[in-house]
Amino acid sequence: MNAPRRIAVLGSTGSIGRQALDVIARSAGRFAAVALAGGGNTALLAEQVALHRPRYVHAPAPCAALETAAAASGARFAPPEEVAAAPDVDIVLVATAGAAGLLPTLAALRAGKPVAIANKEVLVMAGHLVRRAMAEGGGDLRPVDSEHSAIWQCLWGETPGTVRRIILTASGGAFRDLSMEQLAAVTPEQALDHPTWKMGRKITVDSATLMNKGMETIEAMWLFDVPMAAVDVVLHRESIVHSLVEFSDGSVKAQLGVPDMRLPIQLALSYPERMPEPAVPLLDLAAAGALHFGRPDTERFPCLRLAMEAGRAGGTVPAAMAAADEVAVERFLSREIGFLDIPRIIERVLEQHRPVADPSLDEVLAADAEARRLAAAVPAGVPA
Amino acid sequence: MNAPRRIAVLGSTGSIGRQALDVIARSAGRFAAVALAGGGNTALLAEQVALHRPRYVHAPAPCAALETAAAASGARFAPPEEVAAAPDVDIVLVATAGAAGLLPTLAALRAGKPVAIANKEVLVMAGHLVRRAMAEGGGDLRPVDSEHSAIWQCLWGETPGTVRRIILTASGGAFRDLSMEQLAAVTPEQALDHPTWKMGRKITVDSATLMNKGMETIEAMWLFDVPMAAVDVVLHRESIVHSLVEFSDGSVKAQLGVPDMRLPIQLALSYPERMPEPAVPLLDLAAAGALHFGRPDTERFPCLRLAMEAGRAGGTVPAAMAAADEVAVERFLSREIGFLDIPRIIERVLEQHRPVADPSLDEVLAADAEARRLAAAVPAGVPA
Repeated sequence: MNAPRRIAVLGSTGSIGRQALDVIARSAGRFAAVALAGGGNTALLAEQVALHRPRYVHAPAPCAALETAAAASGARFAPPEEVAAAPDVDIVLVATAGAAGLLPTLAALRAGKPVAIANKEVLVMAGHLVRRAMAEGGGDLRPVDSEHSAIWQCLWGETPGTVRRIILTASGGAFRDLSMEQLAAVTPEQALDHPTWKMGRKITVDSATLMNKGMETIEAMWLFDVPMAAVDVVLHRESIVHSLVEFSDGSVKAQLGVPDMRLPIQLALSYPERMPEPAVPLLDLAAAGALHFGRPDTERFPCLRLAMEAGRAGGTVPAAMAAADEVAVERFLSREIGFLDIPRIIERVLEQHRPVADPSLDEVLAADAEARRLAAAVPAGVPA
Repeated sequence: MNAPRRIAVLGSTGSIGRQALDVIARSAGRFAAVALAGGGNTALLAEQVALHRPRYVHAPAPCAALETAAAASGARFAPPEEVAAAPDVDIVLVATAGAAGLLPTLAALRAGKPVAIANKEVLVMAGHLVRRAMAEGGGDLRPVDSEHSAIWQCLWGETPGTVRRIILTASGGAFRDLSMEQLAAVTPEQALDHPTWKMGRKITVDSATLMNKGMETIEAMWLFDVPMAAVDVVLHRESIVHSLVEFSDGSVKAQLGVPDMRLPIQLALSYPERMPEPAVPLLDLAAAGALHFGRPDTERFPCLRLAMEAGRAGGTVPAAMAAADEVAVERFLSREIGFLDIPRIIERVLEQHRPVADPSLDEVLAADAEARRLAAAVPAGVPA
C-alpha cells in the first residue's frame, strides 16, 4: 500500500468540498485530507476538522468550536495560498467559489503541483495567468466539472492537435422549455430547482441562464488550449453524456455516467489511475431508454452568447462578465431584479467595460471590482 | 512527407475491401495498396489492379483481364499468406470472408506486422491461435468493425485491467420490431434491407438474426482480452454510438459517428495517428435529436445467446457455431429454410458437436467442416 495522496481541500464546506471529503473518506486510505479551508459555515468546518484531522485549516473568521477542533487535531491555521504551495501537500482541490480560488491556484501551479479545479471563475477571470503559472512551475490542471472531466477522459491517449471540436453538453437548466414571457416571471425558488444536478445556489441560477455553460466554454478554451471557434454546446437534458470531443478524422468520443460529481472529483484525485471500485451508481443505458440532443437557444438564454463572445474577446472581458453575473445573480436571488435582467445587466456592464489585453492580476481584479460596481448600479427592468 | 504505408488488401473486391481502396485512394499518398487479393469478381479485381498497380495480386481463378492488368502493372501472383509475411508490406488488411482470412492473419502476426482485421470468423474460430501468434511474433490487431474500433478508441490512454464491461451496441437489424410469427415469414429480400449499414449479404442476414452481434461479443473477448462475463450488448437503433466501455470507477466512454465504415478502416491504417481530415460526414447530434437504447430480446433472436454461450464454452464450439451459421444463412438465402430455422439449425449442430479444448488449427478446421456437414443435413422447420 502506497502512502495516501495528501489533498488540500479548499472550499471544504461547499457542495464540491463536501463530496470530495466523502470521496476521501471512502478511499480506503488512498487519499487523506491534509488541509481544509472553509467559508462562513465554521461549525461544519469544525466537524470536518475533527473527522479528518488535517495539518492545515483556514476560515475567514474562525469560531470557538473550530479553534477547539483545530487544537485537538493539531491543525495549524494557514492561508490557502500558503497551504497550496506547502511541500506536504500533493494535490490542491480548488473548490472555493469566485475569485478566492485564484491565488491558491496560481501558488500551487507555480509550486509544480496538480490542481483539481472545480472553480470556474479562476479560469474565466485569469486563464492566461493560470496557463503561465503552469508553464513556469510545471503544475497541471485536472478538471472537476463533469463536462471538462468528460473531455479530459476523451483526450487521454490522443495526439495533441487532433481536436477538431469540443462539444459541451448542457442540461438546459430549470427553464429550458419556458417562453420569454414565462422567463420574465420566474422566481428564485423555481431557478434553484435544477432538474438533474444538486449544486450550490449561484451555480444553479447560472445553469438556468446558461451562463454556467458559457463559463464552461471559456474554461474549456484554457483547460484544453483550443480557440473558442473549436468549442460548441449541445443541449442534452438527461445529463448522461457529460461532453464529447470531435477529432480531426471525424471520430467523436464521449464520456457518460449517472449525474454524480463524485466521479469527476475522484478521478481528479486518483489520476492517472482509476479507482478499482465505482464512485457512483453504474449507468444502465437500456433503462435510460433515450438520450436527447438539441441546439441551445441564445435568444431566450443570451448569457451563453455573452460568455462565448467574452471568451473570444479575451483580456479583462471574461472577468468583467463573471463579476457582473455574480452581482446580477445575487440581485435576482434577493428579488431585486427579474430573471431576464441578469443577461441585460451583464450586457450593459460589458458595454461600459474598457477591455485590457493580457492583463496583470491587478488589472483583472480591478476589472472585477469595476464590473461589480457597475452591475450593482444598473436598474431592474432595464431595456436590452 | 513520409513514404506511404504499404497496405495488403485481402478481400479487395468485397464491401470493406472496396471502401479500403477508396480510403487509400483519398489518402494523398499516405497509404498505398501494394497487394490485392480478391474472390470471384476477377473483372473488378482487374480494374483495381490497373488503378492501384500493386506488387502482389491474388485470385482463386484469375481471368484473362486480370492477368493482363497484372502484367501491365508489374504485379506478381502470390498467395495471401505469403503476401501477409512479405517484408515490403507494412499492414495487412484482412477483409476476406470466412475461414480464408485465418492463415494470412496468423502469418502476418507471426511476422510482427499489424493486422487490420475486418473478418469476424478469424477471431471467432481461432481467437486463441491468433493471440498466440501475436505473442510469438509481436504483431498487433487493429479492429475494423465499427463496434470494436469504438472500443479500441475508448481504451487508448487507459490502464489495462480497469475495464469493467465492454458494451457493444446493436442496431437490432432489419427485424428488430417483428413478432415471432412475423419473423417466421420473412424473406431473404427483407433480411437484406438493413436500416443503417450497407454491407455484404451474409453479414446483413447475420445482423438480422443478431448472430453478427453474437460473433462480435466473441471477437471482443479476444481483441481486448476480457472474459465473456465482461461483454454486454445494448440495442441502439440509430447506429451512432458505435460501442462503449465501462471502467472500474463507473465512468463510461463511447465512440460516436455517422454509420460509415471508412472511419474505422482509415483509423486501422493511420494508427497511432488520426488523419487530419474527416473520412466521413461529421456527426450532428442536435440534428440526430434522440438516441435510443434498449435490451436485446434473445427469445426472438436466439443467435445472440447461442454465440455468447459458444464464446463462454470456447474450444471448437465457436468455430462449429460460425460454420453452422454460414451454411444456415446460405440455405435461408436460397429459400430452402425459414428465418427462424437459422438459430434452430445452429442449436441442433451444437448439440451434436463434440468440443475440443485448446484446439489446433487442424482441429478447428475439422470442427468447421463437420459443422457444415451437419448444418446442411438438418431439415427445414425442425422443432427447437
